[in-house]
Amino acid sequence: MAKKGNIIVGQSGGPTAVINSSLAGVYKYAIDRGYDKVYGMVHGIQGLLEEQYVDLSTQIHSELDIELLKRTPSAFLGSCRYKLPEIFEEKETYEKIFEILNKLDIEVFIYIGGNDSMDTIKKLSDYAILTGRTQKFLGVPKTIDNDLALTDHTPGFGSAAKYIGATTKEVIRDAQGLAYRKKQITVLEIMGRNAGWLTGATALAKDEDCDGPDLIYLPEVPFDLDAFKTKVKELLEKKDCVVVAVSEGIKLADGRYVCELGSSSDAVDAFGHKQMGGTASFLANCLTTETGCKTRAIELSTLQRSASHLASRVDIDEAFMVGGAAIKAADEGDTGKMVIINRVSDDPYLSDTSIFDVHRIANEERLVPREWMNKEANYVTKEFVDYVRPLIQGDLLPVMVGGLPKHLVLNRGNGAGRKARRTMK
Amino acid sequence: MAKKGNIIVGQSGGPTAVINSSLAGVYKYAIDRGYDKVYGMVHGIQGLLEEQYVDLSTQIHSELDIELLKRTPSAFLGSCRYKLPEIFEEKETYEKIFEILNKLDIEVFIYIGGNDSMDTIKKLSDYAILTGRTQKFLGVPKTIDNDLALTDHTPGFGSAAKYIGATTKEVIRDAQGLAYRKKQITVLEIMGRNAGWLTGATALAKDEDCDGPDLIYLPEVPFDLDAFKTKVKELLEKKDCVVVAVSEGIKLADGRYVCELGSSSDAVDAFGHKQMGGTASFLANCLTTETGCKTRAIELSTLQRSASHLASRVDIDEAFMVGGAAIKAADEGDTGKMVIINRVSDDPYLSDTSIFDVHRIANEERLVPREWMNKEANYVTKEFVDYVRPLIQGDLLPVMVGGLPKHLVLNRGNGAGRKARRTMK
Repeated sequence: MAKKGNIIVGQSGGPTAVINSSLAGVYKYAIDRGYDKVYGMVHGIQGLLEEQYVDLSTQIHSELDIELLKRTPSAFLGSCRYKLPEIFEEKETYEKIFEILNKLDIEVFIYIGGNDSMDTIKKLSDYAILTGRTQKFLGVPKTIDNDLALTDHTPGFGSAAKYIGATTKEVIRDAQGLAYRKKQITVLEIMGRNAGWLTGATALAKDEDCDGPDLIYLPEVPFDLDAFKTKVKELLEKKDCVVVAVSEGIKLADGRYVCELGSSSDAVDAFGHKQMGGTASFLANCLTTETGCKTRAIELSTLQRSASHLASRVDIDEAFMVGGAAIKAADEGDTGKMVIINRVSDDPYLSDTSIFDVHRIANEERLVPREWMNKEANYVTKEFVDYVRPLIQGDLLPVMVGGLPKHLVLNRGNGAGRKARRTMK
Repeated sequence: MAKKGNIIVGQSGGPTAVINSSLAGVYKYAIDRGYDKVYGMVHGIQGLLEEQYVDLSTQIHSELDIELLKRTPSAFLGSCRYKLPEIFEEKETYEKIFEILNKLDIEVFIYIGGNDSMDTIKKLSDYAILTGRTQKFLGVPKTIDNDLALTDHTPGFGSAAKYIGATTKEVIRDAQGLAYRKKQITVLEIMGRNAGWLTGATALAKDEDCDGPDLIYLPEVPFDLDAFKTKVKELLEKKDCVVVAVSEGIKLADGRYVCELGSSSDAVDAFGHKQMGGTASFLANCLTTETGCKTRAIELSTLQRSASHLASRVDIDEAFMVGGAAIKAADEGDTGKMVIINRVSDDPYLSDTSIFDVHRIANEERLVPREWMNKEANYVTKEFVDYVRPLIQGDLLPVMVGGLPKHLVLNRGNGAGRKARRTMK
């Protein structure tokens, strides 16, 4: 067997609780398959362009480190939100990347990310083919939003859904404990710009020991503010404590985001996505005015994507598995592909992986199907819950030190990335 | 031994992750000491006045139920925020309460709560003594705020501190993972109107694997907005990612709450306390204007008091212990007392209980001592952390069912509380 070259792996886009489990999977399977070195891009492709990288063998010293990495939230290597130019637009950027890859003797480039990251894999693999490069480019899915096409679900979603389900249950108990002879409304805001998978996961809280939220609004269907107020008022006649879950991305029929109604900010990120936030507090204010009740707006904020202290075991294992599957695919000669997860069976839940052409995936968002919402589009159906439930099963407990979860942190002191020693600590 | 009568127990004020562990302790020790029935007031003294109560033997059927109760957040019996009139003001209310207690053959009245609840114990025990009643009234401390006088700390605080420490660590990792070539600021808002114990607990995140917050502002010291902005700008010159923790209750030197600067609400609760919230988002907006950086405001909101999925084992055990200690004190003839926790040793951490006259406790707030903050009053000292650290140790894992924590819920269908079957479900 010919001696193998090196691998480089990067993490991109919003953090998840299990993105490092995929990194651990890439690392472990790369070593197992006989690759020489595994480099990590520090802050993804943006960092790589500035020659920010580390040799992962300087970071991961033992099986315990692998276990810690699997339990460490948010991108261990640092992430970025960086959009590559079109390949015909700006050759220099691509040439620079390949120069660095050549210098590091990279055979395989793995990028762990969501839609925008798959766009990076697509462009790099296209460029490599067009210019006769031999490097392989593989994508590993990662996003709490669960909005990637073709895969049954994305690593990161299960843990976020578990956290959201558990937290919704606790928030409802908290609100009910205090609601007596005084009506009150809680509006819970969940991440999800266009896809309502996470907001729908609040329905997981509904069980024999919890009513669940009273209303759930996903961004897939236009939001009707008047119908919403009417519905809440109807509920208040029947119960003291009303809990509503809304996606941060709900929009009116005219296309305006609900969060824009109460704010004047037009900030957008590198991909032109609007900055979200403030939906719950806008709605809570509306309801205070409308009903005179005490209202509370709760944004789960970044906790929902980084709460590895309550991660799903299924999710951590699958994240590890897709990392390994990317190495296997590359080793077998694939490029321009993303690993996907197939659901083999619902009960008992079983999954496996396959690979798909990244051109069929990039920039295509998978939304919650309309038939998984009720007729009024203010709740999700049993089919939705049955789809999500297997993904939140099992726990992988943090290693607790001093009463808190222990994390593995990037150490730039002795790494191979030579230039910047600035921020990571 | 003469046959003993009955006990009634209620929960009052803001929920905690372990308030039900105290309820479990009261129940178990009451049965062990030979009391006949243990009634639970549904929604505290307010519910009792409307004859809302249950016989707890209809709710707790097994040791497993006790374990579930210990792991269930927010008041199992329902809470209230209800201030009794002064005893010379409105005799009717008191006579009504004693009439109900007599009807139920109550010998001991236990109230689990914070400062305001101890005010209730004080008034009821005073009234009993003045009018020749024989019932005993005992207070069990409970508040995440840790602001009760005389006790080393309060049950509920340790779990909230653990949740805040762990969450701060995850929020910091999340922010650092994305901070690259683009500075960003996170402002984390923690509960605590007058006492900074919880906000100071964000310092627990600081360890060899985490920088901790960069700045911590407690409500005990007037907040200087200009000095704050200057300090953040200084930090931004040195690092990409600045994380600040502030108490919801920070005030300017002129006495105005920071959260009032951005809002027009004057809402107050039954005890005249201002409704808090919005401090972080006001400060984040200031910093956006001042620095042009991306900012994010995160309120931990009710999660910090009801996240029993990440409770402290020490806290759960102590909450149980103080419940039992109240029964013991009553059984030995005490009344008008609150149980307090004494720290016997720091390392190994050991505690025991004693009882104190509730007149010395009620309505007296214990604040973070100035010497436990640094000179600039923008961080807590090692002494502060050493005081808190033992209280967040150990875990009592939720019983996971269907991937989520299982809770015990009040069942009004077969209870002894006859009147209302309205809200609790």
